[in-house]
Amino acid sequence: MATLTLSRRITLLGSTGSVGRSTLDLIEKSDAEVEIVALTAGRNVALLAEQALKWRPALAVIDDESRLADLRDLLKGSGVQAQGGRQAVVEAAQAGAQWVMSAIVGFAGLAPTLAAARSGAIVALANKESLVCAGPRLLRIAQLAGGRVIPVDSEHSAIFQVLEPQNADQVSRLILTASGGPFRTWSGDLMANATPAQAVAHPNWSMGKKISVDSATMMNKGLEMIEAAYLFGMPPEKVDVIVHPQSIIHSLVEYTDGSTLAQLGVPDMRTPIACALAWPDRLTWPAPKLDLTTTGDLSFETPDLDRFPALGLAKAALSAGGCAPAVLNAANEVAVAAFLDHRVGFLDIAAIVGETLNRVEAKGLAEDDMSNALDDAQDVEFMARRAANEVMANFARARSGGLSR
Amino acid sequence: MATLTLSRRITLLGSTGSVGRSTLDLIEKSDAEVEIVALTAGRNVALLAEQALKWRPALAVIDDESRLADLRDLLKGSGVQAQGGRQAVVEAAQAGAQWVMSAIVGFAGLAPTLAAARSGAIVALANKESLVCAGPRLLRIAQLAGGRVIPVDSEHSAIFQVLEPQNADQVSRLILTASGGPFRTWSGDLMANATPAQAVAHPNWSMGKKISVDSATMMNKGLEMIEAAYLFGMPPEKVDVIVHPQSIIHSLVEYTDGSTLAQLGVPDMRTPIACALAWPDRLTWPAPKLDLTTTGDLSFETPDLDRFPALGLAKAALSAGGCAPAVLNAANEVAVAAFLDHRVGFLDIAAIVGETLNRVEAKGLAEDDMSNALDDAQDVEFMARRAANEVMANFARARSGGLSR
Repeated sequence: MATLTLSRRITLLGSTGSVGRSTLDLIEKSDAEVEIVALTAGRNVALLAEQALKWRPALAVIDDESRLADLRDLLKGSGVQAQGGRQAVVEAAQAGAQWVMSAIVGFAGLAPTLAAARSGAIVALANKESLVCAGPRLLRIAQLAGGRVIPVDSEHSAIFQVLEPQNADQVSRLILTASGGPFRTWSGDLMANATPAQAVAHPNWSMGKKISVDSATMMNKGLEMIEAAYLFGMPPEKVDVIVHPQSIIHSLVEYTDGSTLAQLGVPDMRTPIACALAWPDRLTWPAPKLDLTTTGDLSFETPDLDRFPALGLAKAALSAGGCAPAVLNAANEVAVAAFLDHRVGFLDIAAIVGETLNRVEAKGLAEDDMSNALDDAQDVEFMARRAANEVMANFARARSGGLSR
Repeated sequence: MATLTLSRRITLLGSTGSVGRSTLDLIEKSDAEVEIVALTAGRNVALLAEQALKWRPALAVIDDESRLADLRDLLKGSGVQAQGGRQAVVEAAQAGAQWVMSAIVGFAGLAPTLAAARSGAIVALANKESLVCAGPRLLRIAQLAGGRVIPVDSEHSAIFQVLEPQNADQVSRLILTASGGPFRTWSGDLMANATPAQAVAHPNWSMGKKISVDSATMMNKGLEMIEAAYLFGMPPEKVDVIVHPQSIIHSLVEYTDGSTLAQLGVPDMRTPIACALAWPDRLTWPAPKLDLTTTGDLSFETPDLDRFPALGLAKAALSAGGCAPAVLNAANEVAVAAFLDHRVGFLDIAAIVGETLNRVEAKGLAEDDMSNALDDAQDVEFMARRAANEVMANFARARSGGLSR
C-alpha cells in the first residue's frame, strides 16, 4: 500500500479543548476517512455547535446542562441530536465508536474514559487523571473488553512508539523529557511571586491553563511518571525525568543492551494524536517536518528537585502506591484552581499538595484494595479535595495571623 | 522471562579486527551462551591463535595462506582445526553456524558473506562492500535461504531498530548521522596536506585504518547511504545525511505522520553487535549507559559537499545505479590504500574516485543485469581497480610534469 486510508467510527470526548481541536484539524488534513459518532464538550456551546454542524456526528453533548437549551437552538434542524449533563457524556463515550479520544481535562474525564474502555473501543488517552486515579483498573477493563489504551500525551506516545513489547523485561529505564516549563531558569524567589498569566505562558506547547500550570510546577511531569509506571508496567525506580528545554526528543526508552530508542518531532500534538489514531499503522498528513540542522542544539539537564518539589511529591506518591497518586492529583487540582483564582501563590501549590498527602496518608487511606474503580476513585477524590481545602484554609489562617493586614 | 539467555552456534569472519574483537568481548560480558563454530582472520596469526585457544572453535582459518604453518604450530594439540586461504574462509562461512558475523574489511568480505547468506544463517553484516557491490542479490539470497541480513554498522543498526516493518511505505526519510570525521572543521587547504596519521585519528569511534580514512573523507557515509538504500529498500531521494559531531544519535527514521524515531547510545560497537546477536530479543550485558545530562549538547549540521565531495560522488553512483556503487567502492579502496601508503594526497582520494566513475561509466559498464553475484562483482572490481590505477598514474604524470622535482 502506498498510503494508508483509515476508516473508523470515532468519538471525541472534550472536542473543544486543545487536544480535541487538534484531533479534528488532523483528521481534516489527513488521508483518514472518519465517521464521527459523538462530540462532547464542557461549556463551550458555540464551538461545540460549530464543530457539530461541520462534522455532523450523530450526537453532540454539553457537560454543563444549563447550556443544553443553547446547544439545542444552535443545532436545530441539523439532524445532530443534542444532549446535556455528565451522564450524557458517559453515554456518548460508549455509543459504539471503534476509537474514542479521551481529552476531557481533569477528574471529570475518568467516568467517560472508563465507559469507553468498557465498550471495547481503542481509547486514545489524553486525560491524565484516568491513569493517575484508576490506572491499573482502567487498563484491565480495556483488556477484558478487547480494547486497548493508547497514550496521546507526547511523552507517553514517544515511549509507546519505541517500547518493544517482546523486550519489556529488557527495559532498564523509561526517560520522560520535560521542557522545564516557563520557570526553568527562574530563582525560587521569583517563582514565589509568579502570576497565573506567567505560569500559563508555556515556551513550547500550546495547552490548556490547568495543564500549563502543571508544567510550570513540573507536577505535569510528576503525574506523567505515575502514568508511565502504570501504562507500561514499570516499577517507580525505572521511571526517570530529564529536562530538555527544546522539547524535540519527546521521551526515551533505555534497554539493557545499551540501546536507547527515542521519538522526536516538532512540538505539535497532532503527531501523537496521529500515532494513536492510525496505530499500528501510520497516517499520512502534511505534518510539520523536524529539521535538526535548524532547531538549534539539543540540551539536557537533571531536574532541580528543590525548585520543583512537585516532582519529588509525585515520586513519593508513586512509591507509596494505593490511592496516594489520586490524592496527589486531587490536591493538585484544588491548589491549581486556587492559584489560577489568585487565592494562593505559586509555591503554595506544591506545599498544599505535600501537606494534603501527609494528612490523608495519616488517616490511613493509602490502601490498594478498591473494588469499584469509579466509586472508589470518587471517594478518594472527595476526601482528598476536602483535605486540600482544609490545608488551604490553615495556610490562609497562618498567614493572616503572621502578616499584619 | 527476567533475562534472556541466548544459545547460538556462531561464526566470526574477521575475528581479529575491531568488530570481531568487540563481538568476542561482548559475548564474554553478556548472558549469551554461545558455541563458536569458526573464527577467521586475515593476517594476524598470533591473535587468531589466542582467540582460538580461549574460545575453542571447531575451526580457525587464516586468509593469508603463507601464515598457515604458524597457525598450525600455535594451535598444536588444542583440538582446533587450522586452515588457510581464501577458499577456506568461504567454507568457514557456511560451516553450519546459525549466526555469522561478517566483519572482514573490504571487498574480500563479499565471497564469505554470500556463502554465509546461502547457508541460511542470520548474517550480522559489518562488511560494507557486500551491500555496496552486491546488495540486492545478497538480500535475495538470504531471503531464499530462509536467513536474514541484520546490519551491525551503528547507523544501519539504528535504522533497523526503529524502522517499523508494517510502515515502510510511510517512511518519508532515512536520516544517517555522520560525526563529520577528524576534518569536520578543517579548511580545504589544511585537508590537502592531511597525513594518514591525522586521517585515522577518529574523534568518537575506534575503528580500522581503511574505515577511519573513509570517515575522514566522508566516503564512509556515502557508502552507508548506498547500503541503507539497498538494505531498507528506499529510493535515493529518501536517504539523507546530517552531521552530528557527538555521535550520540546514531541515525533516524522520519515517518509521514511527523514522528521521527531514533536510536541513541554511547559510541560503542558492542551495542549494535548486541542488537544483531539477540534480535528480535535484546541482550543483557554491562553496557555503557547513555547519560544525556553529561554528554553535552547535541548539535547538527548540513554536510559540506564542497569539502567532502565523496558524499556527492556516492549519491551520484547510487542514482546512476547498476554497478556504479561497486565502481565507487573499488576506486575508493585503491585510492585509500595509496593514501595510507603516502602515494597520493588526501584530496586525491575523491578526485581519483570521481575520475574512475567517469571513465568506467564512459566504457558503458553501468548495467543492471548481472547473473552471478560474486563473479560479476569480481569483474566490476577488477575493471574498476584497473581504471583507478590508470587514473592515479595519470595524476602522477600530470604532477611530475607540472612540478619541478
